[in-house]
Amino acid sequence: MPDIVTAAMIVIGDEILSGRTKDRNIGHLADIMTAIGIDLKEVRIVSDDEDDIVAAVNALRERYRYVFTTGGIGPTHDDITADSVAKAFGVPCDYDEKAMALLAASYATRNIEFNDARKRMARMPVGATHIDNPVSIAPGFRIGNVHVMAGVPSIFQAMLDNVVPTLETGSKLLSATIPCPFGEGVIGGPLAEIQKAHPDTIIGSYPKYLDGSFWTELVVRARSQEALDSARAAVEAMVADLTSK
Amino acid sequence: MPDIVTAAMIVIGDEILSGRTKDRNIGHLADIMTAIGIDLKEVRIVSDDEDDIVAAVNALRERYRYVFTTGGIGPTHDDITADSVAKAFGVPCDYDEKAMALLAASYATRNIEFNDARKRMARMPVGATHIDNPVSIAPGFRIGNVHVMAGVPSIFQAMLDNVVPTLETGSKLLSATIPCPFGEGVIGGPLAEIQKAHPDTIIGSYPKYLDGSFWTELVVRARSQEALDSARAAVEAMVADLTSK
Repeated sequence: MPDIVTAAMIVIGDEILSGRTKDRNIGHLADIMTAIGIDLKEVRIVSDDEDDIVAAVNALRERYRYVFTTGGIGPTHDDITADSVAKAFGVPCDYDEKAMALLAASYATRNIEFNDARKRMARMPVGATHIDNPVSIAPGFRIGNVHVMAGVPSIFQAMLDNVVPTLETGSKLLSATIPCPFGEGVIGGPLAEIQKAHPDTIIGSYPKYLDGSFWTELVVRARSQEALDSARAAVEAMVADLTSK
Repeated sequence: MPDIVTAAMIVIGDEILSGRTKDRNIGHLADIMTAIGIDLKEVRIVSDDEDDIVAAVNALRERYRYVFTTGGIGPTHDDITADSVAKAFGVPCDYDEKAMALLAASYATRNIEFNDARKRMARMPVGATHIDNPVSIAPGFRIGNVHVMAGVPSIFQAMLDNVVPTLETGSKLLSATIPCPFGEGVIGGPLAEIQKAHPDTIIGSYPKYLDGSFWTELVVRARSQEALDSARAAVEAMVADLTSK
């Protein structure tokens, strides 16, 4: 098992950048990645622009083990993710035979015309494999290390559930949260000392501001239980020491 | 007045990428930018890593008129935004005299020690100017076209309120929303025709999935009222035509 597996996400859509739609997929992917032991290292939100999508896909697929995209795989003219990802990989984008059959059968059952717009949803880069969509049939796809999924949250989540078992995962980053009644100005000095003394951990401080005063949540992260426990004890001792003053 | 003014955002923080904290600043910035006539073109979420922050700042400040960052400007060891932005601009990061005076006075009033951790909040790239923080005093800063603000939403929002009047804005992107009872598979074809016939507009289709069926919100955007009205009329006629079938 590799120690660290990294990932990045690309959220595609003018509607997120205009504020019209508030993204709900970033937080979900982040939660799932943390739960299964993959480090989400970067997220980019880009517009419905082919050059921007190609640039983001190529920058991130080189750098991280996995890339996940959401958005832009529907049947309308502004759904350009499949074409853009194909261009990023330098392969043609075409109607996928298996996807065409799936969609044709689904529309036939429902007595709905399988028109040109709907056929667009069967387009994918040549060589891509399907990501099943149990919600609304039209599949996402994987090519290389890039996973292309829907932007509608319920469909994204269902597709991601199908992707997760296929992923190589690293050792989980364990974490412990210590609530702290002091603001960062009080703890900044001693906490930095604790971080220095525990280089195999990542110690984060998250300020909360409520009714005119600050408190903090201190989070210790480590890949071994031993390192975690040791740093956690030091942080708890620091809080106890400050409290007794 | 320039026709188009562009912007990008950098959200800095491991806690967003781990899912521990759900970002609430992207949507707010997007709303404000749209309201004042600035096009938010890209968002990146990066970890508390100097190289990653420097790379994002330098990539985006070259490309867009404005860059806005949130997060990493507090008093603890993981707050490295000021140093990273200074490095991106190739200038030293130092204690700012005016910020030191502001913070010293504020802590003196409250009879709180102005310790080394708190002094970290007065560090900024040499040559930067303040962004006032009416909530908790410690200022953000602007250097070149980069605006560095807090990650705590209430403080970010207050800082942004102080930044907005200083920004050059473009002509606003007007928009009209047309609810449509049909899924994208129905409208994909005719909507693409309307987009082709109205090249000075951006027509977006946002699928909604509820109780087993799709409907859509169609959004027309344009910089002139005339172009907007013309495309909106065409979209409304399309919906009426489909409804009558």
